[in-house]
Amino acid sequence: MDKLDAIFSPESIAVIGASTQKGKVGHDIFANILYGGFQGTLYPVNPKARSILSVKCYQTIAHILDPIDLAMIILPPRPAVKAVEACIAKGVKGIVIVSAGFKEVGGEGLEMEKKIQQLCQDADIRLVGPNCLGVINPSPGVSLNASFSNRMPQPGNISFISQSGALCTAVLDFAADQGFGFSKFVSIGNKADVDELDLLRYYHADPNTDVVMIYMEELSCDAQTFIREVREMTSGLNPTPVIAIKSGTSDAGAAAAASHTGSLAGSDAVYDAIFSQSGIMRCSTVNELFDYAKALACKKVPRGDKIAIVTNAGGPGIIATDMSENSGLKLAKFTQDTIRELHKYLPPTANFHNPVDVIGDAARDRYENTLATVISDPGVDSVLIILTPQSMTDAMGTAEAIVNIARSEVKPIVCAFMGVVDVSDGVHLLQENHVPVYQFPESAARAMGALYANNRWLSRRRLPQYEMSHDVEKARAIIDGYMAQGIDTLGELDGNEILKCYGFNTLEMALATTADEAVDIARKIGFPVVMKIVSPQILHKSDAGGVKVGLNNEAAVKKAFDSIIKNARQYNAKATLDGVLVQQMATKGKEVILGVSRHAASGHVIMFGLGGIFVEVYKDVVFRMAPMGRNVVRRMIKAIKGYPILTGVRGEAPADIEALEKNLVSLSAMVKNHPEIKELDINPLFVHVGGEGTTVADIIISLAPPA
Amino acid sequence: MDKLDAIFSPESIAVIGASTQKGKVGHDIFANILYGGFQGTLYPVNPKARSILSVKCYQTIAHILDPIDLAMIILPPRPAVKAVEACIAKGVKGIVIVSAGFKEVGGEGLEMEKKIQQLCQDADIRLVGPNCLGVINPSPGVSLNASFSNRMPQPGNISFISQSGALCTAVLDFAADQGFGFSKFVSIGNKADVDELDLLRYYHADPNTDVVMIYMEELSCDAQTFIREVREMTSGLNPTPVIAIKSGTSDAGAAAAASHTGSLAGSDAVYDAIFSQSGIMRCSTVNELFDYAKALACKKVPRGDKIAIVTNAGGPGIIATDMSENSGLKLAKFTQDTIRELHKYLPPTANFHNPVDVIGDAARDRYENTLATVISDPGVDSVLIILTPQSMTDAMGTAEAIVNIARSEVKPIVCAFMGVVDVSDGVHLLQENHVPVYQFPESAARAMGALYANNRWLSRRRLPQYEMSHDVEKARAIIDGYMAQGIDTLGELDGNEILKCYGFNTLEMALATTADEAVDIARKIGFPVVMKIVSPQILHKSDAGGVKVGLNNEAAVKKAFDSIIKNARQYNAKATLDGVLVQQMATKGKEVILGVSRHAASGHVIMFGLGGIFVEVYKDVVFRMAPMGRNVVRRMIKAIKGYPILTGVRGEAPADIEALEKNLVSLSAMVKNHPEIKELDINPLFVHVGGEGTTVADIIISLAPPA
Repeated sequence: MDKLDAIFSPESIAVIGASTQKGKVGHDIFANILYGGFQGTLYPVNPKARSILSVKCYQTIAHILDPIDLAMIILPPRPAVKAVEACIAKGVKGIVIVSAGFKEVGGEGLEMEKKIQQLCQDADIRLVGPNCLGVINPSPGVSLNASFSNRMPQPGNISFISQSGALCTAVLDFAADQGFGFSKFVSIGNKADVDELDLLRYYHADPNTDVVMIYMEELSCDAQTFIREVREMTSGLNPTPVIAIKSGTSDAGAAAAASHTGSLAGSDAVYDAIFSQSGIMRCSTVNELFDYAKALACKKVPRGDKIAIVTNAGGPGIIATDMSENSGLKLAKFTQDTIRELHKYLPPTANFHNPVDVIGDAARDRYENTLATVISDPGVDSVLIILTPQSMTDAMGTAEAIVNIARSEVKPIVCAFMGVVDVSDGVHLLQENHVPVYQFPESAARAMGALYANNRWLSRRRLPQYEMSHDVEKARAIIDGYMAQGIDTLGELDGNEILKCYGFNTLEMALATTADEAVDIARKIGFPVVMKIVSPQILHKSDAGGVKVGLNNEAAVKKAFDSIIKNARQYNAKATLDGVLVQQMATKGKEVILGVSRHAASGHVIMFGLGGIFVEVYKDVVFRMAPMGRNVVRRMIKAIKGYPILTGVRGEAPADIEALEKNLVSLSAMVKNHPEIKELDINPLFVHVGGEGTTVADIIISLAPPA
Repeated sequence: MDKLDAIFSPESIAVIGASTQKGKVGHDIFANILYGGFQGTLYPVNPKARSILSVKCYQTIAHILDPIDLAMIILPPRPAVKAVEACIAKGVKGIVIVSAGFKEVGGEGLEMEKKIQQLCQDADIRLVGPNCLGVINPSPGVSLNASFSNRMPQPGNISFISQSGALCTAVLDFAADQGFGFSKFVSIGNKADVDELDLLRYYHADPNTDVVMIYMEELSCDAQTFIREVREMTSGLNPTPVIAIKSGTSDAGAAAAASHTGSLAGSDAVYDAIFSQSGIMRCSTVNELFDYAKALACKKVPRGDKIAIVTNAGGPGIIATDMSENSGLKLAKFTQDTIRELHKYLPPTANFHNPVDVIGDAARDRYENTLATVISDPGVDSVLIILTPQSMTDAMGTAEAIVNIARSEVKPIVCAFMGVVDVSDGVHLLQENHVPVYQFPESAARAMGALYANNRWLSRRRLPQYEMSHDVEKARAIIDGYMAQGIDTLGELDGNEILKCYGFNTLEMALATTADEAVDIARKIGFPVVMKIVSPQILHKSDAGGVKVGLNNEAAVKKAFDSIIKNARQYNAKATLDGVLVQQMATKGKEVILGVSRHAASGHVIMFGLGGIFVEVYKDVVFRMAPMGRNVVRRMIKAIKGYPILTGVRGEAPADIEALEKNLVSLSAMVKNHPEIKELDINPLFVHVGGEGTTVADIIISLAPPA
């Protein structure tokens, strides 16, 4: 038995801090459990009351003779600590602390929360909260509403995790209005013990939960563990779809035109990466969250992207077509058989092609025959049915027909019954029978798009990992050297050495401290060469006039040396100039940028994008959390909008995407082996045509002791 | 008096085709007018009935002795024609034909519709329909529900135009559910006479209409007239905001990687252009349409983009912050005075900075004082208030306080009262007092973004037009020559001549038919040169290996000539090869693409975008309808995502945007003067650094007789 069962399905509950005074949280929660029809036994605890709402009250939890599964504590921080001690002594199995005033206010509140956390940990008791709305389990065998909200939702197969108590009440109201059923509902507040990952594990194992919705403010567990475990839940054996709304600050956009990874990898980008790698679908509004949950709860998966639309009005059919295409679906093309069959049932003025228009005066039979026909077409993967109330419309009969067909059909069906009132019996019938129904066709189409996205996640390709060996020791020695000296930015020469250890192809280069030395090096490397200033104070060398390219002969190299040194002095008179790097000129290729940024909370995030203007102006970059293997990397590369530039446009040969994949996998290995890497930018990396690999043209690495 | 008054505010109505049989349209519409409390006099017309719903029935309209303002006709096409003739004889002032079976089914239906159209036109009578839902005017002095729908909406200041009857019923239901009021409501069906522009003119002049919502399937009037008139309505004296939902097929996206204007200028792009130039805000869902309408109906305009957010819960505050920033708003920074003032009213645990968190236990007073304080801050342009139901929450009291402040305040306030049931009295109070209120903070924030977008439209800069003179006659002569010969594609030389007539800077060039001629021309122009195949059958010269650039000497030119001819032969053995164009090498600049495509229905649409990969992969292009002047062009150029590339990134000098503006204005003049131009692509046009103008590097023009 899972320890969280004591919280979600207790047989007995003590409400510590229950109150006789209406309007107080200690009263209302007790009343909500009592009047919510809890199937177990309920004990109020309050030293000053005889009974609460007619139920005998106990002075302390110790006074209760029977065993207690769950203690709900509604007390200020100091008394709450005492109560927790008493609960442990009593042998309770789970605790929920609803009251606020803990970590979120700091000071003593924080201290008390830490104390409670430790007490529960030592006693091996799970704790939800503090500072939360409570727990709800509408399942008829439990019927527990241990929350502020006096609304018990209907039972269903969707479970909810909210970090915001305030949002919970609004969500419960919204759900009631939509006839939306929940399996389990919890507000996790400060997450002193139970966090989102604990709950995801619990919900994943719960036979009554088919879909999980999360409202997240910040992830409190380790991002890597979260990704690893949740990826298994969303796509392993017995997958459970998870959809989330995450309020993230739009900090990434704010970072002006700076083009290095650190400035682009804002927290929102990190969450996008975490969700994407975990297989969590991200929604931007609560409406979307409900729309998707409703569709996923029907547990049918479209095998492909071909949708059929059946409507009794043209306009809504066009809207559905548009939104389907915008949501990654395509309109199915019917077979001749299907079209012939439709001619039997529909009047000649109907449209027999997709979207099928059964015409305004369609009653139940036309919908029924049309749905049965199109859903049998081998080229149709899913069906969207639109009903708009018109004079002959039979919303109830049509809903019955849809339910009958949906019952024995593996292909998913979604409906848009337009109008709130006229079609309500039909809508209720569909809801009761788990056929997703929406008010507008665009919502229905978008939800079907989400179902198909989920299918693509479930059926994604998984190729074997690349076998690569890296010279970890050599790289470590270089990094240790810098760390020992307390220098936080690697020179380009050492940066290149580290990249070489990880299989990157770098350019031949050497440092010149005089113009003559530069000429000697250039002669060895071969003309043309590139020359760059080397100074720990000058990171963005171009801005300082510290880069010259295409130097074809000795005179040009000499002149470039002098001019680079002069420019650098002008740019920053105090900078230490180590010299000028003379470098082999790279064979050009597609310019891409690879970057790493270390986040205190989530670890290393890796960026990939097209270089130059593409990253600066179009921000066409994508982020993923390290570690990542070949498959994550492959999808990462495909995720940028400019991907066709790599596969070749205007008849160009495709770039060496496999070499690029290997570079990104190696970069992930690098930051795992060397957590000291704080930021890294390879900008640009040239990706040559297929088979010819990549070349690092510039590298910046900065270090800091890992957290 | 406007002729449409007879349709929206008649004093007497005859329902021709009224029926005694419940469920028939002729019965239901009559019943809806009667039971809807119509303030004038209602006459059923049906030769077979004595009375309908207790009202004396007339054999024909001629039998009615009193004058009739409006005739509602519910009859099949042939009898409808007869009825229209009778109406005209009777002297009715307006007609609505509800029945279907006309143009939309073709054949006789189409013929009858044309007949009716002609009859009404000759008699100077306005006609709505056929094939429409009807007309509604909920204003208490009229109280007319001449529609299929038995729901009379509440009176309000928003008017609606729908091309889809089916959507109307759903919209009426949705509106009833949201307590949304309408001024006038009409379904225009086949638009045999009255179209969207007629109605926009009428609504604009209507003192009871403050906002217009349109559901559009296709525009039936002339696009240029529509733009010119609607632009005046949305931004002239007494502006009326217009918001639209347009279902357009996503044809533009489907056009693969082709980079010429014709393939990109799908109908959806054309509508985007029409809406953008008319000042119509486009929404993608019905929810958004209602959300924006609600906000615009409050008639307050934020002067700037700085929003203040007041909330009693952190999570929803973050959601609102995100959506505000995504909707073009910025969080206001409060003055020290504001923050000092807030300290007087809020507990120390509150957040005194924007978004202000008044904490979960806030009752009415904290909201009231906080709102009064932040709205007085000179740096605040608008306020969003979030209320989530918690134990101390006073939704009604808070709503009262908001209404009191909103009453005397010019800055707009929007609210998100989360939850459907718990907060309903507060929500109703806000609705009654025209304070926009939403269920979720993201909707409220997005609606405020729409208000600000409307302000930017109203206060857009209008600079004087450029003075330019064009050699129209010379251009016309060239085009006439081609038209006379029936040749539909201009050679590059002639294309360049036409562009020169319109002030474009073109390259020196001449046609060579032998390698020696090519060398002569190159010597005259000066090395390096570019060489291109000239063949009416080879439009995309690069694909054919028909372009060589950077030819530096005589030998290179000779070799290039032979190789171009050889490649062209290989590419298309049947192509007529006119020779090879030897062209001055263009001074490089920013590559942009200018294009024109002529649409049968809407006229010339002009495209602008960055050239090369930007148009192919990122589809970063924008469309506007010709004619367009300097101001439309200026905003058009700014509308592409890559605009910073023109103003200069990475320390580059800005490009000559003024010269580019002049080119686009000239292009608009060109297609106006020469409607024969069917398609035109200048790809690329090089835009040099500021002051140095632009250069046409390649031009394709194709012609066809104008429609």
